[in-house]
Order: sequence, then structure tokens, then C-alpha cells
Amino acid sequence: MSNELIGKLRAIVGARNVLTRSDPGADLVAWERDWRSLQHGHALAVVRPTTTAQVAQVVKACAAAGISLVPQGGNTGLVVGATPDASGQQVVLSLLAMTQVRKFDAANASVTVEAGCVLQHLQALCEREGYLFPLSLGAEGSCSIGGNLATNAGGTQVIRFGNARDLCLGLEVVTADGEVWSDLSGLRKNNTGYDLRNLFIGSEGTLGIITAATLKIFPQPAAMLTSFVAVPDVASAVELLKLAGDRLGPGLTGFELMNQQGLSLVARHFPQQRVPLWQDAPFCALLEASDHESEEHARLLFERLLETAFERGLVSDAVIAESIAQSRALWHVRESISLAQAEEGANLKHDISLPISSIPHFVQEVGGRLQDRYPLLRIVNFGHLGDGNLHYNIQAAENDHAGSALHAVQEEVTALVYDAVARHDGAFSAEHGIGSLKVTELRRYKPPSAVRLMEKLKDTLDPTNLLNPGRVLDAGRS
Amino acid sequence: MSNELIGKLRAIVGARNVLTRSDPGADLVAWERDWRSLQHGHALAVVRPTTTAQVAQVVKACAAAGISLVPQGGNTGLVVGATPDASGQQVVLSLLAMTQVRKFDAANASVTVEAGCVLQHLQALCEREGYLFPLSLGAEGSCSIGGNLATNAGGTQVIRFGNARDLCLGLEVVTADGEVWSDLSGLRKNNTGYDLRNLFIGSEGTLGIITAATLKIFPQPAAMLTSFVAVPDVASAVELLKLAGDRLGPGLTGFELMNQQGLSLVARHFPQQRVPLWQDAPFCALLEASDHESEEHARLLFERLLETAFERGLVSDAVIAESIAQSRALWHVRESISLAQAEEGANLKHDISLPISSIPHFVQEVGGRLQDRYPLLRIVNFGHLGDGNLHYNIQAAENDHAGSALHAVQEEVTALVYDAVARHDGAFSAEHGIGSLKVTELRRYKPPSAVRLMEKLKDTLDPTNLLNPGRVLDAGRS
Repeated sequence: MSNELIGKLRAIVGARNVLTRSDPGADLVAWERDWRSLQHGHALAVVRPTTTAQVAQVVKACAAAGISLVPQGGNTGLVVGATPDASGQQVVLSLLAMTQVRKFDAANASVTVEAGCVLQHLQALCEREGYLFPLSLGAEGSCSIGGNLATNAGGTQVIRFGNARDLCLGLEVVTADGEVWSDLSGLRKNNTGYDLRNLFIGSEGTLGIITAATLKIFPQPAAMLTSFVAVPDVASAVELLKLAGDRLGPGLTGFELMNQQGLSLVARHFPQQRVPLWQDAPFCALLEASDHESEEHARLLFERLLETAFERGLVSDAVIAESIAQSRALWHVRESISLAQAEEGANLKHDISLPISSIPHFVQEVGGRLQDRYPLLRIVNFGHLGDGNLHYNIQAAENDHAGSALHAVQEEVTALVYDAVARHDGAFSAEHGIGSLKVTELRRYKPPSAVRLMEKLKDTLDPTNLLNPGRVLDAGRS
Repeated sequence: MSNELIGKLRAIVGARNVLTRSDPGADLVAWERDWRSLQHGHALAVVRPTTTAQVAQVVKACAAAGISLVPQGGNTGLVVGATPDASGQQVVLSLLAMTQVRKFDAANASVTVEAGCVLQHLQALCEREGYLFPLSLGAEGSCSIGGNLATNAGGTQVIRFGNARDLCLGLEVVTADGEVWSDLSGLRKNNTGYDLRNLFIGSEGTLGIITAATLKIFPQPAAMLTSFVAVPDVASAVELLKLAGDRLGPGLTGFELMNQQGLSLVARHFPQQRVPLWQDAPFCALLEASDHESEEHARLLFERLLETAFERGLVSDAVIAESIAQSRALWHVRESISLAQAEEGANLKHDISLPISSIPHFVQEVGGRLQDRYPLLRIVNFGHLGDGNLHYNIQAAENDHAGSALHAVQEEVTALVYDAVARHDGAFSAEHGIGSLKVTELRRYKPPSAVRLMEKLKDTLDPTNLLNPGRVLDAGRS
């Protein structure tokens, strides 16, 4: 049966676009192991279609054979959502060979690309044309647009431009029955029926396979300016966020928070980076402003903003980048926290979101509880404050590099964090999704009414559980 | 059976919140007739719950009795989507008694209101608190937030803030089985499962009943400035739109196009209004800029923009409002076109959207065809160019005030317009929705793959066709 399917798949996409374990010199690890190396699965085959029609045929062939599909983009996800299970009975459908830019429409401020287009390539393409595609995240050199949409990626400019969902004007999708639904016209208003687009976005390949998308692009700003400030506490950071919004309006394109612990790890492990201000402040914030007039104008607004912030005691010290290089260096500090955590050793990641108004209380409450119960653990709290999104990570104790003590309490610690998130009306996954890592949390924290609706949608759109089974919703559901 | 149901409904919401034809002095016309008086239905009863729990009980009672429900907000829709059919066997569920503001959260820049809250009340509430709720449309004095979301309303600031959908952070919904699904936490990032919110938004009450919503609010700008310009043709207007986007970025909060025919009707029927520039230009545009710095700054940017536009021949004449009163007067001209059309007599409305890049060609092509075939008909073309949304209306001939000649060719004319819209990858309903008026067009112009997906969603979320039957999807479907 398997051999018959593989023959069919070879006929559809061409022999060299079907990889199997039994191929001479085959090494499928790049498709079988997730980005964080948390799980290593075994695929029946890796299939790399180059057209939407091929994707549809692959889906039909797998459906006929009763073999499930795991759609995969750049394989940079953080929740084990795009790699096969250990059965050796799943087909990895890699979209990376579908990379065409189908249409660049300047007058409509939109671009239509295939799912395998790498985010950084799209950013560069738009920049060459004088436009901005504002989705920006750590994995942008490897992640693909299809994966960004399937997981509703976030990143650093959400405060102004929204999540991947908000940047999408239309999709082309292959459904579980191998049909193509397409709406790539790039309309900004279209009230001709139910919103199918948003159903597929963020469904992590469990409801359909995104093969192409039409995306919004934006005029490039004349200048971008970055400031790094020390704040006395989280409440001040939230007030500063509001003040910056009042003064800069949509010109505020980034607002990141970083605690002292996180910055200290960057200073320790990357001594070549100059980490500013962190030694005397419990928190620092990174603000980014985009200006459609001039750098001079951006600087003037920023200086006025910081002056007021100083007067109100919201910031205790501040630097404004004097050049693009300095600006990049400041962002680099922020982006190095995760890497510094890895260098430091074992740690737990919690990608959470909260109503922004609840964050000061949450940080105080949960920080207190953790310090009481686990005084040696270190809280590395940083993230996109402007979106209410914290990476509330827990670093093992100084003397526990391998993390054996941390792992012994891992479940308790995570439950403590997520329980508090739930009490504060937050979400246990802000931008990373569910994948297979968080299916248990989904059952625990999501209201039953929401889970029932999700199950209904899955059952009606993928009745045989062909697409990415066990992801988002666990296989054991009724 | 009906009497039994009415007794149950009275027990749920209180006797005075159930209106029936047989009540002494009863007049249900306000709930039974649509805004444009196109259809006059007959309700079994009008029920006005005051709480979400009551809505859920009403749904269960109606489901048990096999009586369908027609959810209704301010009843200002333009496609007969919220009034009962003629059977006398449908219950109108009016949400207008649910008007509570549940939470105003300044630090989270969000507000949670019940479905019956009138848009203008919400705008005013936010303004008093120093915030902007940017949804703005002609019916704002009567329409309700629940209806705005159920129809994904558009309006005049979509270019900057998006449609109603884009302003919504969360919903509370009563589903067809009388359960409550709620997510009113106001999170800006939440990747914990499928996007249920957007499924209900824009579904026109056919998949669930929206009872409350958490909405985004924004810092009020320091200044808003309006300019009214004459443009030589539509292509120039599209170029001006791009130039304005480059210069003002997100400061561009409105871009409306109006043809000479439309403006001439305003000048004719509302002579007290001073309509500028229209006599010598085929099209005029209204631009609005919002500025977070100052009026002086807004004016400077606007002047520079118009200077460049003059140099490039994109505008032939321009006025910039000198005061808020002047600004309102310019907007009033734009908003009076529909009223002037009504004064002038019979007309056909086409609320269409197109890729912005296709609009110049579309206007030329369709205008030419219409003038060839129906030389006496008058094209009143205006709308939200910044969103690709035209109200491409057709006014009866000068001597056909009652419209008998127009009505004789109505179907042909509309088919000519919509066929061209389809050829240009546009939509036959941009912001008004489907209701019952456009169910035929939905079958004709929507790809079968989309209709099949919509039917699956309807069947799984409302298997007994309890909610607003025959709307969006026609009753005769398989």
C-alpha cells in the first residue's frame, strides 16, 4: 500500500521531489526533526510539490491511501506542529518548492506569493520596490509565508501592523478533499459571505493547506528611530506605552520590554554587545518610531516624548540611536535574549499574552510566587509589551546548567504560570500556536464551548483527520 | 404551539419585552420593515432580551418549538438581512435592549460593550475618555455594534483602521444550540486555536448571535484636516492615493472619490450646501489626514502633498478646510450624495469593490458600455477609493423620476455591472453584505468551492437552519 502511494506521489510531483528513507544516501532529518530538536519523527515520505494542482493531487492520493499529511514550511515553529510523528506512516508535504511571486501590485499595495516564499525574501523584494512588508521575526531568514499564515505569526511590529492574519488580504488553500479554494484578488472590502480566510489562518495546517496568499504592503517610512530606556517598574512601562501611543499614534511601531535578568544574560554571554542601561534598572524598554516625514522629525517627537516621560518619572535614563547601525545594535540586544538563555543553559519558555492593563499585577504576583517557591530559579521576562505578549521564561538555577533540578519542577512551574495567566484572562500561547506541545493546555484552559466549536469545524472540514492529525486538537477527542 | 412559545418567551424576558401583533395597539412595523422599505415582513413576535442568558434561553425555546430567529440590531442594513419573512412564523430577536458598557480599559486600549449599544453612543463615550473609536458610517446614529459586527460594516475610515472586523478583539456569541461562547479578554495576540471570532463577524446572524464585543480604541489625534480636490480622471485619483500614502503613511485616514454627476445632484438638491470645484472636473476627491502632533503640522504636510500633486498634474484645483466647521461641510457634501440621489428619484445601488489598480480601467470600460446601451441613464459613482470600494449607482434618466424605464432594464444593468466586477476580480458586495437581496448573486459570482465551504459551516454550526434562514445562503440549497 505504502509503495503504491509512493509510486503515485512520484508520478504527481516527479521522482526527485519525493524523498524516502530507502533512497540511497537519504537523510530526512531536516524535515523530521523540529526546530528546537524536541522531537524526532519518522516520515513515510517527504513530498515537494511545485504547483497548487500538484498539492491537490497529493492530498487526494493520500486520502485514498488513508495516509495523513503534515504540511511544512520553513520548519521553524516552536511547538512541534510541522514534523511527522514516530509512526513512519505520515507524509510530510513541504511547500518550500512553491516560491513564485505571482503578482506585485503597487497601485493596490499588495503582493501575491506562493506559500514557500521565505519571509526575508519577501521583505527584500518589497524593499526593492519601495515598499514595506512589516512582518518581522527571529526566524525570518528561514520561515515561509505559508507557515507564517498557518501559525498566524507575530513578531516585533504587531503593535502597528497586527499579526500575520492582519496582513493577509486573501488565500489559496487546498482543502482536505483535494479541492482548491482561492481568493487572491486583493480586495480590502469584500462582504460576500463567510470569512473563510481567517478560518485557515492560524489553524496550523489542520483545516487546509495554504498554497498562496495575497498580502498587504505599505509605503516605506522616511525614517525609523530606536530608543532604549530604563524604567523603574512594569507599571511605568505600561504608562509609557500609553504616552507613546498618544504622542506618536501609529508612528509607534515597536515597544519591547526586557527585565534585568534577561539583559544580564546578554551582557554575560555576548560581551562584544554593548548592553545599555541595564545595571541600574529592573526593566528596560525598546521603543521604535516610524516617520513618514524625516529622521529629524522623528527625533524631535521622540525627544519630546522622552522629556515628558522623564518629568513623569516613567523613565530614569534613555538613549536614542544616532545611526541605523546603533539602532540595529539596540534591536540586536533585544533579539539576543533567547540565544543568551540557551547559552546559559536549561530554561522553560512561556509565550503568554495578557490584557496590557493586567501585566503589572501579573508580573508582581507571579514573580512573587515563583521566588517564594523556587528561590533559585531565574525569571527571564521580556517581550512585546505593546501587544500584551510576554516571553515569560524561567532559567534554571546558576548551578543547574543542565537543568535537572528545573526539569523536576517543570510541570509545576508551568502550571503556576499558566494558571495565573488564566486568572488574568490571558492566553497560554500568544504567537507560537498549539502544535503538539500545547494540546493538553488547550483542553485545560480553553472554555469547553470553544473546544466544541473547534471540534465541529475540524470534523466538517477534515472529517477523516487527514491533515496534521493530533495537532491543535488531540487525536483522543470524541 | 405558537401561543405556547410566546408564553415561554414572556417567562424568559418578561411580558413587556415580547411584542406580538395581537397586543392591544401593537405596531411592529419598526421591526418588520427594512431600512429601505424594500420588504415588509410579518413576525410571530418581537423579543427583546436584556441579558445574554436570556438570549440563550430564547434560542433554546425557539429551537424546541421549531421556530426560526431573525437577529436584529438597529435595523439599518441595506440588503434586507434583519427583518422577518412574510410567514408570520419567525421571531425577531432585537438586541437593542442590551446596551451595557461592560468595561472600559484605557491601559489595554479596549472597550467591551453589549450588542445593542448604538455606534454613535460608543463613539461619544470613547471621545469623553480621550479615545477614538474609528468606525464611522451614515447610519451611526441608529445602527448597533452587534449589527456592525454581524455585517462587518465599513464606512469612511477603513483605509486606516480597517472594517468592523479589524476593530474587534473578541466576541460573546450565543450559538444555534443556545450555548454561550465568549472571548472578551481583549487580547491582541492569542494563538490558542481556530479563529472563531472572524467566523461570526460578517455572518449576518446566520451562524450565531453576537451579544457583546471587545473593541479596539485608539488615541485621539491632535488634529484632523480635510481637503477637497479636483482630479482630471480616475487614474490620477489612484496615483494621488499612492502619493498621499507615501507622504502621510497611516496619517491618511480618508480618501473618497466622487464623480461630477453625483456632486451635481448635491448642488441641485441641497443648494444651501456649497459644493466646491465640481463644475470643471470629472471627479473630485476628499482627503482626510489625522495628525498626532498638531494642526499646523498636518497643514504643512497636506500643503506639501498637494504641491507635488499639482506639479504632477494629479490635481487641478484644491481647497483645504480652514476650520472644523469647513471640514464637516466638505464631508457633508460627500455624505449627501445618497440623499441627493433619493431626491432626484429612482436609482440602482451597486456597492462594489475592486483591486484599486483595476479601478481606472473598470470605470472607463463599464461607463462606456452603459453609455452605449443606455445613453439616458446617469452614472453616480462615488465611494471609498482608498479601500477600492465604489458605490457605483445608476440614476434614472432626467425624465424618469419614478423610474419605470430604469426598472425595465434594472436586471440587465445590474448584471452588466456585476459581470464586469467579476471580470476585474472584484466583489458584488463590498460593505453591505448579502442579506436576502444578494443571495442569487452569491450563487452566480462566488466560486462553487467557496459556496460549498460556506454550506458546510452553516450545516455544522446551525444544522436545523434556526438562525436567520434564507439569508446569505438561500433556503433552497441542497
